Amino acid sequence: MTSTPRPSEDEIIANFFAPLAAPAGLGLGDDAALLSVPAGHALVVTKDMLASGVHFFAEDPPDVIARKALRVNLSDLAAKAAEPAGFLLGLALPGDWTVEWLGAFAKGLAEDARFFECPLLGGDTVKSLGALSLSITAIGTVPESKMVPRAGVREGDLLYVTGTIGDAALGLRLRRAKAADRWIEALSRPARDYLLMRYLLPLPRLGLRDALRGFAQAAMDVSDGLLGDLAKMLALTGVTTEVSLADVPLSKAARQALALNSSLVEPILAGGDDYEIICAVAPAAQGEFERATEGLGFSVTRIGTASKGTQKPLIRDGEGRLLAFSAASYRHF
Amino acid sequence: MTSTPRPSEDEIIANFFAPLAAPAGLGLGDDAALLSVPAGHALVVTKDMLASGVHFFAEDPPDVIARKALRVNLSDLAAKAAEPAGFLLGLALPGDWTVEWLGAFAKGLAEDARFFECPLLGGDTVKSLGALSLSITAIGTVPESKMVPRAGVREGDLLYVTGTIGDAALGLRLRRAKAADRWIEALSRPARDYLLMRYLLPLPRLGLRDALRGFAQAAMDVSDGLLGDLAKMLALTGVTTEVSLADVPLSKAARQALALNSSLVEPILAGGDDYEIICAVAPAAQGEFERATEGLGFSVTRIGTASKGTQKPLIRDGEGRLLAFSAASYRHF
Repeated sequence: MTSTPRPSEDEIIANFFAPLAAPAGLGLGDDAALLSVPAGHALVVTKDMLASGVHFFAEDPPDVIARKALRVNLSDLAAKAAEPAGFLLGLALPGDWTVEWLGAFAKGLAEDARFFECPLLGGDTVKSLGALSLSITAIGTVPESKMVPRAGVREGDLLYVTGTIGDAALGLRLRRAKAADRWIEALSRPARDYLLMRYLLPLPRLGLRDALRGFAQAAMDVSDGLLGDLAKMLALTGVTTEVSLADVPLSKAARQALALNSSLVEPILAGGDDYEIICAVAPAAQGEFERATEGLGFSVTRIGTASKGTQKPLIRDGEGRLLAFSAASYRHF
Repeated sequence: MTSTPRPSEDEIIANFFAPLAAPAGLGLGDDAALLSVPAGHALVVTKDMLASGVHFFAEDPPDVIARKALRVNLSDLAAKAAEPAGFLLGLALPGDWTVEWLGAFAKGLAEDARFFECPLLGGDTVKSLGALSLSITAIGTVPESKMVPRAGVREGDLLYVTGTIGDAALGLRLRRAKAADRWIEALSRPARDYLLMRYLLPLPRLGLRDALRGFAQAAMDVSDGLLGDLAKMLALTGVTTEVSLADVPLSKAARQALALNSSLVEPILAGGDDYEIICAVAPAAQGEFERATEGLGFSVTRIGTASKGTQKPLIRDGEGRLLAFSAASYRHF
C-alpha cells in the first residue's frame, strides 16, 4: 500500500485545518485565538475527549469520527441554549496515520463546522504512541443570565425530551455484534441503517435554543442514558418523577427492535449516546414552550412531571409494572 | 500491589476535580461552564494536547505531568499578554490508572491552578485503551486590541527573549540518556538537577504581561526551539535577523554543558520545550520596555534587531562563524 508522503505539523495546519479557521483563529498561525464576545453575553465552554476503541472504532470513517467529536460538544452547547462561536481541536495521531485519513477527517470537520456555523479557532496536533485520541473544546455565547442550568427543576415542572431515545445504544449493539443476535437478523435493513447512523452521527439540537431561553427552568444533554441523566438532573434540586415507557419517544426502528426483543428496553433507556436534550418547563409556560418547539424538524415530547422526593425516577411499562435495571446509565470506568 | 478501589466518573469529579473549580465551572456539575468576560475585553483561547511517551514519560510524577500540561498552555496566554481566566481538562486514562495516581495528579494541578490564579472550569475524563493522553484548553482575557500578535515585527524592532534558552532540551537529553555521555558524567549534580527541573516544569512568563501590552509589537511562545520559532515569527512580516551566540541567554548549567560538549549548541538553540517568550519592541520604546521588565524575577534579554529580508535568521558563534543546524526546530512528526 502506498500513501502520500506525510506533511509537517505546519503543513498539516496550512493544508488541512487553516481552511476551517474563523478570523478569530488568526489563520491558526498564532499562539492562541482571539475571540470577541458580544456585549451583554457570557461564554459557555465545554470539552469532550474521545478515545479510539472507547468512543468510536478505529476503522470508523475518519469524517464520521470528526463529525461526532464536534457534534457531542455542540450538543452540550445546545443544552445550555448557547449559540456556537467556535471550537478548538486537539488531535493525537497514532504512528500509522496517513494523509488520506487526515484529509477525510478535515473534510468532514469542515462540512460540519460550516453547517453548524461553528468555525475552528485553534488547536494542537501531536503524535500519539498509542491509538488516536482527540479532544474538542466548543465555545458558545449566551445573553447574560439566559444560560439554562442543570440545577433548576422545581416541583410541578413538566419534563420534555427532544428527538427519540435509545437509537444510538441500539446502533452500538449492531456495530459490536459479531455473531448475529436473533433480533438483529430479524430487523429490517432500513431500521438497521437508521440505528447505526444514529450511533455514528448525533444531531445536536441547537434549534431548541429559543424555546429553552424563553421557557426552560433547567436542561441537560442526554449522553449517558435517559434514566441516569434524568436522575442526575432531578437530584440536584430534590425532585423526582415517574415515567411511562409508552411516553418515551422511540423511533420506528427502535420500536421494531424492542418488539423483537423486549430486553432491549434496558439499552434504550440506559445505554447512552443519545445526545438529545431533557428540559423542565413550568406549567404556566407549557403552551408557549410547546408552540416554540413547533417546526424545528425534531419532536419535543413530554415524558413526565417533577414531584418532590429524593428517590430515583421510576419507570413503568405498558402494564404499569415497575422496570428495574442493573445500571441506570453508562459507566465510563 | 494493592490500590484503593476506583471511583466512578461522577466520584472522580466530586473528589478530585470539583475542589479546583471556579464558580464559573458550576461545580463541574453542568454540561458546560459559564464564563463572564469583563467589559471591553476579548478572549484569548489556546489548547495543547500532551501524549504519554511523547510530551512526558509515563513514569513522570503525576503532579508534574499535570503541572506541565497546565503551564504550557499558560505560556501561550503569557505570550499573548492575556490574564488567565480558567482552563478545561480532558483526560484519557489508561487501563491501569490508580486512585493514588489520580490523587497526586489532581493535587499538583490544584496547586498550580491556585498559584497561577487559573481555576478549573470543566472538562472530561474518559477511558483510553492505549496510553495516557491529556488536553488542556486555557482561556484568558485581554483588553480589546491589546492582544500581542505573532505577526507584527517591523524592520528595526529590537528582539528580546525571556529567561534562558536550551535548558529544557538539555534536561530532556539527561532524562533520555541510557548510557551516560561524557558531558553528562562531567556535569555537576546541581546543574543536572536544574536542567531536569527546567524540562519537567516550564515557567510561564505571565509576569511579562504589562510590558507586552504596553510596548511589544509582536510576541510568541518559544516551544519548538529558539531558532525555528524566531524564524517563524519573523517570516510572517518579511523580516529576519542575525543573532550572536554570546547574546543568547544561557543558564549557568547550560553554559557548563556547552563547555563540556560544544555540539550541544544545536539542542540548546533548536531543541524546544523552552516556554520562554520572544518579543519585538520598537526602538523608541526600548527604555520604557526595559524598565517595565525590571524586577519580574526573570531576565529579559535583547538578542538582535529585525532587518528586512526573507532569509532565515543567521546565528554566529564567538568567532563570528555562521552556525548551521540540520533542523532549526523540533519536528512533531
